[in-house]
Amino acid sequence: MVDVIDAKRNGKALTDDQLQFFVDGVVDGSIPDYQVSALLMAIYFQGMTSAEQTSLTMKMMHSGEHLDLSKIPGVKVDKHSTGGVGDKVSLPLAAMVAATGIPVPMISGRGLGHTGRTLDKLEAIPGFKVEISEQAFIDQVAREKLAIVGATGEVAPADKKIYALRDVTDTVDSIPLIASSIMSKKIASGTDALVIDVKTGAGAFMKTLDQSRALAHALVDIGKQAGLQCMAVISDMNQPLGNKVGNALEIEESIDVLKGKGPADLTELVLTLGSYMVVMGGKAQTPKAARQLLEEVVADGTALDRFKAMVIAQGGDPRVIDDYTVMPQAKYQIPYRAKHDGVVSKLAADEIGTASMLLGGGRQQDDDQLDYSVGIELHHKLGDQVKAGDTLLTIYSNQEKVPAVEKLLDESIAISDHYDKPQLIHEIIE
Amino acid sequence: MVDVIDAKRNGKALTDDQLQFFVDGVVDGSIPDYQVSALLMAIYFQGMTSAEQTSLTMKMMHSGEHLDLSKIPGVKVDKHSTGGVGDKVSLPLAAMVAATGIPVPMISGRGLGHTGRTLDKLEAIPGFKVEISEQAFIDQVAREKLAIVGATGEVAPADKKIYALRDVTDTVDSIPLIASSIMSKKIASGTDALVIDVKTGAGAFMKTLDQSRALAHALVDIGKQAGLQCMAVISDMNQPLGNKVGNALEIEESIDVLKGKGPADLTELVLTLGSYMVVMGGKAQTPKAARQLLEEVVADGTALDRFKAMVIAQGGDPRVIDDYTVMPQAKYQIPYRAKHDGVVSKLAADEIGTASMLLGGGRQQDDDQLDYSVGIELHHKLGDQVKAGDTLLTIYSNQEKVPAVEKLLDESIAISDHYDKPQLIHEIIE
Repeated sequence: MVDVIDAKRNGKALTDDQLQFFVDGVVDGSIPDYQVSALLMAIYFQGMTSAEQTSLTMKMMHSGEHLDLSKIPGVKVDKHSTGGVGDKVSLPLAAMVAATGIPVPMISGRGLGHTGRTLDKLEAIPGFKVEISEQAFIDQVAREKLAIVGATGEVAPADKKIYALRDVTDTVDSIPLIASSIMSKKIASGTDALVIDVKTGAGAFMKTLDQSRALAHALVDIGKQAGLQCMAVISDMNQPLGNKVGNALEIEESIDVLKGKGPADLTELVLTLGSYMVVMGGKAQTPKAARQLLEEVVADGTALDRFKAMVIAQGGDPRVIDDYTVMPQAKYQIPYRAKHDGVVSKLAADEIGTASMLLGGGRQQDDDQLDYSVGIELHHKLGDQVKAGDTLLTIYSNQEKVPAVEKLLDESIAISDHYDKPQLIHEIIE
Repeated sequence: MVDVIDAKRNGKALTDDQLQFFVDGVVDGSIPDYQVSALLMAIYFQGMTSAEQTSLTMKMMHSGEHLDLSKIPGVKVDKHSTGGVGDKVSLPLAAMVAATGIPVPMISGRGLGHTGRTLDKLEAIPGFKVEISEQAFIDQVAREKLAIVGATGEVAPADKKIYALRDVTDTVDSIPLIASSIMSKKIASGTDALVIDVKTGAGAFMKTLDQSRALAHALVDIGKQAGLQCMAVISDMNQPLGNKVGNALEIEESIDVLKGKGPADLTELVLTLGSYMVVMGGKAQTPKAARQLLEEVVADGTALDRFKAMVIAQGGDPRVIDDYTVMPQAKYQIPYRAKHDGVVSKLAADEIGTASMLLGGGRQQDDDQLDYSVGIELHHKLGDQVKAGDTLLTIYSNQEKVPAVEKLLDESIAISDHYDKPQLIHEIIE
């Protein structure tokens, strides 16, 4: 192992054998943590070649269980997001793409992060089950064209151990380590094609466009080398995506998108990502044609129908489609008002996510119970003109007074003389 | 700790508080090894400022016991060598400097390294004790002006733990880590002034002059900031120093130097280092005057007398001064001959050290018993003209046949058409 560390420390690319030795030793515990962390830090400084990060990814993937979806006919297409606040994209997106006839098998991670995750949002629908057997998952995707579930079995245990060490040794933000961690799990899910939504900005893991671009290229590169169709979109995460943050609230907004009445930014991002998925799935020749197809399945109700079919297949209450109040409802709706006239110039996504967590919508600790009903609804977004006293956002709470949340929002929101609306889609990387 | 790693990873200088937190956490075990090794690797890549490495040194020094030599009158002067083959410099040097009236309290590490160490060499003298109490050490230095002993008590336990981790995480060759490790132990020994012999070349830890220079500057810088008088000499270690390698053999050669009949290179290095020690000790104004003084104490026998006084004080047999055969003698002297005419162009110091170890003169494992009698005597050095059949060196062995040693020597020695004698003293750093 010292030789492996030495090679990387001196800027050499690790060989397949060295990476296999490393991954095996991590999984069986024969390489002590202090050597693993020394190598991770050396990787942080020296980086990895394209071949190297792909090799590491595949070896981490093979360290655990991986799905065989070959029994599902057609090109299976999935989407991955690097995560952001208000990011409910998977929900309407899976339904729209499935409505074009493409199988969408989504396996969502039980990752870290304090805001509600896709699986948490779905669990706001009474009865909805995200833990189903592998066979039931495959059957459902074959029959209904979509399923969104939690991982069964042990996916990429090497990644799990390495991730835990990265977190405590300050080696989280290394592009090859991030990219191999994400892709080892996505490749294990058995998809044929993958569209990646790399978030960028203050509320994203990658704060700058340069970092986001580097990560997007690494992810796409690994995906292609692993034999997947793969592309990435870099989208903005300086403010929350859409208007609603919170579990039941995000289900509402997702269904709104499928009804053709979702907020503009969320709808635009879903259509952009979806159009590439539809091309990859072979149902359209160009993203433009694909987009038209997606608009049609929204207009004719078949996308909404796919969502309903998934809710039924996974045990959820289908009345949610027409009646959002079957989901838990917050007792209080507390308006948060603009303090003066001007243009909204700051709506810090991460702090608004934290505010939603404080209300009970996210987890501070792994075993916290979620309150699905709470959250925050934005009535204005960056660049909007507002007047003093206008309701900027509504706090959905089960407590009458929320001073800590209001204080946090005071710090997260700014109104200035001028602010240009941010670009939503920064780059497309194919 | 993650914040500390993060600061260093991002190229910041660690604060005193951060370094104290680190050293405390290493000693009490509250910082796990995987975080220590991550920080060490970050230090490897990002380096340390002068203030930082001094602060780390002092904190490691204070993590353990340190001597108070203030009861010994006069300026106490010590020497440290980064280590090489045939390096018996401390033995004649301590005696010569002591003979000028300067107290020389030498505490020699029980470090790693497979060739015999200064303490091992002294133990080749029957009865010589290197483990004596702190009080006995202080008394001896006050009375006889010199003592060479092993460390008593726990010196710099933080360094001990960090060193063990560096060895297995490929972070040994980081200048600030090497320098703080050396200096934490030397400062703990309580000396007022320190001359450092930084070896350079194939047989040294630092292979290139650039590396050696960087280490020398770091060592001197830390020493001065810690309030010591401090300077360094960069000396050559491409071939063994002097003509003899082996424990009893090196005692012989050391006494030869004190009798004024030592080999030229060893004598020159001892006089060079000694002249700076004498200046620091206040017994001469210039290195040139100091050198003259050292030549006088050799010529009039007072230097040899100091060595004899030390041998007696530490329980050794003083007859060794006049009769080297009181030390263990090897059964066989096996000549190793030049294979063809030419100039000696390679006498690889490290391999010749390994050859001596194979004979029994060094340790392969920590608990190996040494054979004091064995070793290698060089009859020619780099740049010497030789003829086929000339005895290049003599192998002192207790086995009649030594094919493995001869094979190793075949690879360590070369004779070519032309080779310039290497420079002995490369640089003086004050």
